[in-house]
Amino acid sequence: MSRYWSDIVQQLVPYVPGEQPAIARPIKLNTNENPYPPSPRVVAAISAELGETGDSLRRYPDPLSRRLRETVAAEVDLKPEQIFAGNGSDEVLAHVFQALLKHDKPLRFPDISYSFYPTYARLYGVQCEVVPLADDFSIRADDYLGDAGGVLFPNPNAPTGHALPLAEIERIVAANPSSVVVVDEAYVDFGAESAIALIDRYPNLLVVHTTSKSRSLAGMRVGFAFGHAALIEALNRVKDSFNSYPLDRLAQAAAQAAYEDDAYFRATCARVMASRTRLTQSLQSLGFEVVPSMANFVFARHPRHDAATLAARLKEQAIFVRHFKLPRIDQHLRITVGTDDECDAFLKALQGLLK
Amino acid sequence: MSRYWSDIVQQLVPYVPGEQPAIARPIKLNTNENPYPPSPRVVAAISAELGETGDSLRRYPDPLSRRLRETVAAEVDLKPEQIFAGNGSDEVLAHVFQALLKHDKPLRFPDISYSFYPTYARLYGVQCEVVPLADDFSIRADDYLGDAGGVLFPNPNAPTGHALPLAEIERIVAANPSSVVVVDEAYVDFGAESAIALIDRYPNLLVVHTTSKSRSLAGMRVGFAFGHAALIEALNRVKDSFNSYPLDRLAQAAAQAAYEDDAYFRATCARVMASRTRLTQSLQSLGFEVVPSMANFVFARHPRHDAATLAARLKEQAIFVRHFKLPRIDQHLRITVGTDDECDAFLKALQGLLK
Repeated sequence: MSRYWSDIVQQLVPYVPGEQPAIARPIKLNTNENPYPPSPRVVAAISAELGETGDSLRRYPDPLSRRLRETVAAEVDLKPEQIFAGNGSDEVLAHVFQALLKHDKPLRFPDISYSFYPTYARLYGVQCEVVPLADDFSIRADDYLGDAGGVLFPNPNAPTGHALPLAEIERIVAANPSSVVVVDEAYVDFGAESAIALIDRYPNLLVVHTTSKSRSLAGMRVGFAFGHAALIEALNRVKDSFNSYPLDRLAQAAAQAAYEDDAYFRATCARVMASRTRLTQSLQSLGFEVVPSMANFVFARHPRHDAATLAARLKEQAIFVRHFKLPRIDQHLRITVGTDDECDAFLKALQGLLK
Repeated sequence: MSRYWSDIVQQLVPYVPGEQPAIARPIKLNTNENPYPPSPRVVAAISAELGETGDSLRRYPDPLSRRLRETVAAEVDLKPEQIFAGNGSDEVLAHVFQALLKHDKPLRFPDISYSFYPTYARLYGVQCEVVPLADDFSIRADDYLGDAGGVLFPNPNAPTGHALPLAEIERIVAANPSSVVVVDEAYVDFGAESAIALIDRYPNLLVVHTTSKSRSLAGMRVGFAFGHAALIEALNRVKDSFNSYPLDRLAQAAAQAAYEDDAYFRATCARVMASRTRLTQSLQSLGFEVVPSMANFVFARHPRHDAATLAARLKEQAIFVRHFKLPRIDQHLRITVGTDDECDAFLKALQGLLK
């Protein structure tokens, strides 16, 4: 604490991201990164932008990421003006809180969800109404029907992996015509239905994507918001009052190339989904209860083994999974779907700990 | 305007960055980019981080940019915990407004200055007290002595290029023990004195740097704040409530390499300063009044030619300079110091227009 801090800083409870271990070859199943590298086209595009001398780097990047947004627009069948690009979906979500979710009525979101949401709310002074998930960790659409300052949930939900059918999402969007409904689809490419299909019919729907998971670009920080042009304009107004150039040249080139290689993207997602099935079955055979997952992670608990203890013991073997010290889920582990080899090493270590 | 926008979005007046022309080979003297490419070590460092497959890109970057901050710390003779790294100094400044400049008393800054400052103030609801520069565009230290919620000015100032001696800066810092004094040193490497030397003695001093100008990395978006660890902690609290991973892997690698090549950095700055002298003399010989500049741009007016008209005519010849439609300076042009060839092409075109 310092007398120089603003009031808001004194009140903040910062988000704590998953550990990025400094050791050489961890088995890292704790921050939902893709086990496969980005498309070879990404490397080629970065090298092309860089050139022999890196001369382009001395110039500011395109502040509006136009070529990237045009490429993504073609991919998701929207217009470029329906797309906002930011420095990772975390930055996009921050702008969304400030631009579209701060109103007199409280913002509604699930109690078990992306744990950054309450942090954003404190940063921008957004009132919140936290809605408990059902006992099976599903989002009940009935809890989100009308009269909120805004609605926000991930689909599939994190850290549960549970996915809401598109018809249920549409019920929520249709029931909130006066407020913005934000669907955070960071994990949607691993089997869930995207709400992007609803955007042309609902001016109050905003869908957030990231390249950090299904596009293997967590290291490059590129995220998007999709929605009606008026919603995107609000985000651009905040961006242009915060940082005109949020995406550097290489990040723009990398993300564009990732979207251009649709075949690679589909193949990678299919591999992750196949490994997810295999990992789920193996965990079940070890006695774990596993929440049905549509994401690139599984959320599991063992009826007779403490989750925090398991996570700590795995870490001693350089195997990292995520444990949240939070109500209702402190007996669960969130395990990223790695390669089959990584999953096998994790399962073998786990088996040793359960004995 | 839309009913979905928060109140703050409705009130914003976004910053308008200098034009990034889409044409192939403009003479671009409008956004103060370095005319020389980054150090060859930057290209090597990016290529090394990228590797053959880009595999590292699937992993989140270090959220705290530790290696980069250690490198910079050694260079500026501070400790890593006295350094904050952000996605360009624009993002750094945004966090500074929210974390350290929002208090009951108004923030004091010059009327002619970086035009993003009033925009940040609106975004975060910071009260401002705008202080006129002297007629020669110098900052009068006497105008900033005490009883403000905060003090902020660029040194050298932009868009004037005027530099304040370190002793005058120290007078301001010493006279404001209860509030933070921010010196925005985006252009300091082209001949002015850095206030970093004062940091160990003043817990209320924050100095902001960028790699966009003297390090030729505008395209990579890396900026810093230097100050007492308590001030840096405030920035980290905001960062971790906004976006845990502001710098991507390649940006961290690029900036680190740029700081490691001190000889290249010094040589490049020296070339720009020599060209600045030459450009200033040439403009004076064409009848321009030129503000003495310690930056990589000059600020000049012609007593008989309208600045906006000159800028527009130059643009017709694919030569871009910056004109601000603002009180007191609407008859000035801000001209980035390019290579001598670029300056000559600009001067030749200008000569044609003055006939």
